[in-house]
Amino acid sequence: MNETRGVIEGVLSGIPHDCLIVLVSNSDREPVDRYEIEAQTVEQFCRLAGRPAMTVHQRDPGVAAAFKAAGMPELIDDDGLVRGGKGEAMLIGMALAAMTGRRYVGYVDADNYVPGSVHEYCEVFAAGLHLATSPYAMVRISWQSKPKFRDGRLFFNRRGRTSAITNEWLNRFLAEYSGFGTEVIATGNAGEHAMSLELGLKLRLAGGFAIEPYEFLNLFEQFGGVLESTDPEVMASSVPVFQIETRNPHFHDNRGEDHVQGMRMQALNVIYHSPVTLPAIRQAIVDFMVEQGALGPGQEPPRERVYPPVGTLDLDLLFDVLDAEARSFRRLDGQAEAAPATEPPVVRPTIPRKAA
Amino acid sequence: MNETRGVIEGVLSGIPHDCLIVLVSNSDREPVDRYEIEAQTVEQFCRLAGRPAMTVHQRDPGVAAAFKAAGMPELIDDDGLVRGGKGEAMLIGMALAAMTGRRYVGYVDADNYVPGSVHEYCEVFAAGLHLATSPYAMVRISWQSKPKFRDGRLFFNRRGRTSAITNEWLNRFLAEYSGFGTEVIATGNAGEHAMSLELGLKLRLAGGFAIEPYEFLNLFEQFGGVLESTDPEVMASSVPVFQIETRNPHFHDNRGEDHVQGMRMQALNVIYHSPVTLPAIRQAIVDFMVEQGALGPGQEPPRERVYPPVGTLDLDLLFDVLDAEARSFRRLDGQAEAAPATEPPVVRPTIPRKAA
Repeated sequence: MNETRGVIEGVLSGIPHDCLIVLVSNSDREPVDRYEIEAQTVEQFCRLAGRPAMTVHQRDPGVAAAFKAAGMPELIDDDGLVRGGKGEAMLIGMALAAMTGRRYVGYVDADNYVPGSVHEYCEVFAAGLHLATSPYAMVRISWQSKPKFRDGRLFFNRRGRTSAITNEWLNRFLAEYSGFGTEVIATGNAGEHAMSLELGLKLRLAGGFAIEPYEFLNLFEQFGGVLESTDPEVMASSVPVFQIETRNPHFHDNRGEDHVQGMRMQALNVIYHSPVTLPAIRQAIVDFMVEQGALGPGQEPPRERVYPPVGTLDLDLLFDVLDAEARSFRRLDGQAEAAPATEPPVVRPTIPRKAA
Repeated sequence: MNETRGVIEGVLSGIPHDCLIVLVSNSDREPVDRYEIEAQTVEQFCRLAGRPAMTVHQRDPGVAAAFKAAGMPELIDDDGLVRGGKGEAMLIGMALAAMTGRRYVGYVDADNYVPGSVHEYCEVFAAGLHLATSPYAMVRISWQSKPKFRDGRLFFNRRGRTSAITNEWLNRFLAEYSGFGTEVIATGNAGEHAMSLELGLKLRLAGGFAIEPYEFLNLFEQFGGVLESTDPEVMASSVPVFQIETRNPHFHDNRGEDHVQGMRMQALNVIYHSPVTLPAIRQAIVDFMVEQGALGPGQEPPRERVYPPVGTLDLDLLFDVLDAEARSFRRLDGQAEAAPATEPPVVRPTIPRKAA
């Protein structure tokens, strides 16, 4: 959303060649059509490299029409468009990846100033998914550090301001079950994460910034053994979640305190409302939120939106409506520009539609 | 020199596995022995990964003894130690690499906050040396940008403050010959560069920060066709110099204006004194230095030290004296720690001495 062309080019260049690039944008379309600039950036980058890509704008009426037709009217707001929010954009991304028949989806935030760190994220995704022996696997990145400029020099914080709170409460959630204090969850707000689509299509995703912490909760809800699982196939297997620390620091845009506080509270809201959260933790969350001034005494934390699994969508119908109605939807098939006659043409995988 | 452990660990982690790590340090040895911390960092990193490495301190009396014995007394100062200076450290590094029989040497400055960019430098070195059809090849890195913090946000400068000046004068040097203005030289001060040792062992390296710009001048002096070359073998081949721009920004420590001005002037000194620099450029350099306040009217730019080629050293003798007398000299042979009995041992290349 509203990143400069240079930053987007850098992020694209960090993504390994054999990956399909999916860019979901909620950038401004006026006075300057920033999405158009982004889509052109992707197109120019991918043409040179002979790489496949898809781009789409979150608030394109055709995208809303496609998700409505494919079976997820919950995603649409009163304006008849897909709701704004990070979780909603990531849901679109997962659906597009699934539509092409890819087996894995990996997320990388666009506000990243270091292409080499994007590259490392993707390599870590691949390493983790390769190590997983279950088809239902997730990899979440824990950054080495998050640098801020302070007193005339770079200071490399080990944890982000939101992650510290989210991780603490997810760990308290777990400790309440086990009776052992734990720090096992280190990636509650990990924007950079990947999963097999076999797992992803079963997950219920939350809207906005609740998406990343809620993935943990939904895993516990569906496959934690506290509630009866609706999915014996997954229960017969396992759901490994790899949390892997990178070597690169995470240099990105420094957003304000409001943004941080908003993210923290969205994480707490989903922990509070999860049916697997024990009463002592629910009470402690309310106390903490009141203390933080995020909640009045006697109020209940608001509910975050939670969507049906992407696996419930009719992906063929999604594609047909996107293709016909979504004017922002662009596909690059990954064929290289015509090479000089003396060189053999570069052959790259195309984007297949999901097998009929 | 005097980098923190965390920064050094990051740089080490960016170097591809099959490379031999050579760390040449001029860090303080008191009140805290920082070199000892660095050597331990390398040892711990390499033991875990089963990787070969060598570390040495520039001001170790045994190092001076070894270079004196091997035939380069020019490197020794009045204290009987190897002179301080970046060029001198790099000369030691090249000699150590040559001693082991490696074919290429690549330099990476230790003050780098982004392991992924170190990794990209090494991959670019490999790509360039692979593309070169001549055995006498060099690869020099042009960073994508050099970020500085300004007005509360990161500003990504395209060029460093020194490089702009050095490149301009190297290009004027060339243009004076061709009659065509040019911007062909973009890496006059490239700390990150690599070369085949077949070329490196023939080069005369300059001391201090003059080393990088002087590499260009020495190439022109020895192989430019202006002076008679002493090396018909190289002249029958060619000396490709690849200047490759990276995708990663170069995040490093921001040194002061004095440092920058010193580097600029050292570059101008070597251009001024090169026997292949034409008179008009020599005069223009003097005028510029006077204007900059770096030179009084009527003064001549100082001469930078230039050393004999590393290829003139007796490398077997160098190794013997280092091994016997240099207490800071450490070698790790790259054998992994004993693996569990059920796992096959990891086999890594050892550090061979130069074939007798």
